[in-house]
Amino acid sequence: MEEKEISQAVIGRLPRYFRYLGELKDEGVERISSQELSGLMKVTASQIRQDFNNFGGFGQQGYGYNVEYLYKEIGKILGIDDTHRFIIIGAGNLGRALGNYVNFERRGFIFTGIFDQNEEMIGREVRGIRVQSMEAMEQFIKKHDIDIAVLAIPKSSALEVSDRLVQNGIKAIWNFAHIDLNVPEGIQVENVHLSDSLMKLSYNINRYKKEKGRQEQKAVDADGK
Amino acid sequence: MEEKEISQAVIGRLPRYFRYLGELKDEGVERISSQELSGLMKVTASQIRQDFNNFGGFGQQGYGYNVEYLYKEIGKILGIDDTHRFIIIGAGNLGRALGNYVNFERRGFIFTGIFDQNEEMIGREVRGIRVQSMEAMEQFIKKHDIDIAVLAIPKSSALEVSDRLVQNGIKAIWNFAHIDLNVPEGIQVENVHLSDSLMKLSYNINRYKKEKGRQEQKAVDADGK
Repeated sequence: MEEKEISQAVIGRLPRYFRYLGELKDEGVERISSQELSGLMKVTASQIRQDFNNFGGFGQQGYGYNVEYLYKEIGKILGIDDTHRFIIIGAGNLGRALGNYVNFERRGFIFTGIFDQNEEMIGREVRGIRVQSMEAMEQFIKKHDIDIAVLAIPKSSALEVSDRLVQNGIKAIWNFAHIDLNVPEGIQVENVHLSDSLMKLSYNINRYKKEKGRQEQKAVDADGK
Repeated sequence: MEEKEISQAVIGRLPRYFRYLGELKDEGVERISSQELSGLMKVTASQIRQDFNNFGGFGQQGYGYNVEYLYKEIGKILGIDDTHRFIIIGAGNLGRALGNYVNFERRGFIFTGIFDQNEEMIGREVRGIRVQSMEAMEQFIKKHDIDIAVLAIPKSSALEVSDRLVQNGIKAIWNFAHIDLNVPEGIQVENVHLSDSLMKLSYNINRYKKEKGRQEQKAVDADGK
């Protein structure tokens, strides 16, 4: 059977469902309706049903979804059962922070190597793994069957390094460099542009301030009448 | 004049426009058409025009947009001219990485304080700023007129800390804890859920692998005929 193409917007929402269902399961909740899940997650019940219908609907009955079943099924879709080995490029603060993040392991992502071009970093350890020189990267990817590379380097070298990663068989790049990569079809990229996220926050602060100012002005005008 | 409400999807795209325009400006490009920008950014020209129309269109003429003008205008909309002081809660690897990220300063975000509940962290320095105890946080927020708090703590304490932040006048939370916060209206929250982002990547790797497998099977079947 041909599977239908599922939009990246739907896929982007799956990890959040997975997170909420995991918490419900841990709390011993056995069944949940789309209405209850909607209230908890602050999305509409119809959005939830639509999203789940992409995967056959998960057997919602009159009395709701089976939490454990739904959790497992979404986990399978997300590929949580599989393990993926990853390397980190860049052993600066961010690279080290990501290497030390034990939660990734619980989701099947195994921190396997870390590389830096800075001589001073080489030989240091991040969670028991020695920082190696960039020259050792190519060999390492092939030898250890690495799927994912995390780019925690400045944008100036990000494009060149991502080319080298792709040439050596990396299937996916988790990109923290502040630049959009240019990769061949079939290579998966997920961007985390921290400055972009912070700018969105500053926009919303200013927007709210202005909106509030306008409302207060209106109230003053109304009083003056 | 009443400004119209602009969707978060449009706002989420503004920092990326800002980034590309900044690069074009640095390269000395004076004018650019929506078609050229479309090719560069890999979004449709009609999307670009629609997005810009939310802000009056920025005077696109037959010969395109003025790069410097557009860059400045989008910067103003994003509130880049304003400065926002921020504090970081949690001086672990991630908190320290964010404190050391000098790029934020260039966008008007000023790293002002960092707090941790771990006795061993207190007194250490992150980019010249001393880590303080969580008890000092409330006073500090008021005294230094802090707008933004960065939550780089585990999810177990995130809700309690975010309540304390809001009670003490924080306007926005940049949340790296792996949980959705529950804040009053008017408090801006921007989530960076790293595990969610990584799971999306794993989904796309698996999806592509399956898709490729199917195509290869089809080719084998076709050969066999």
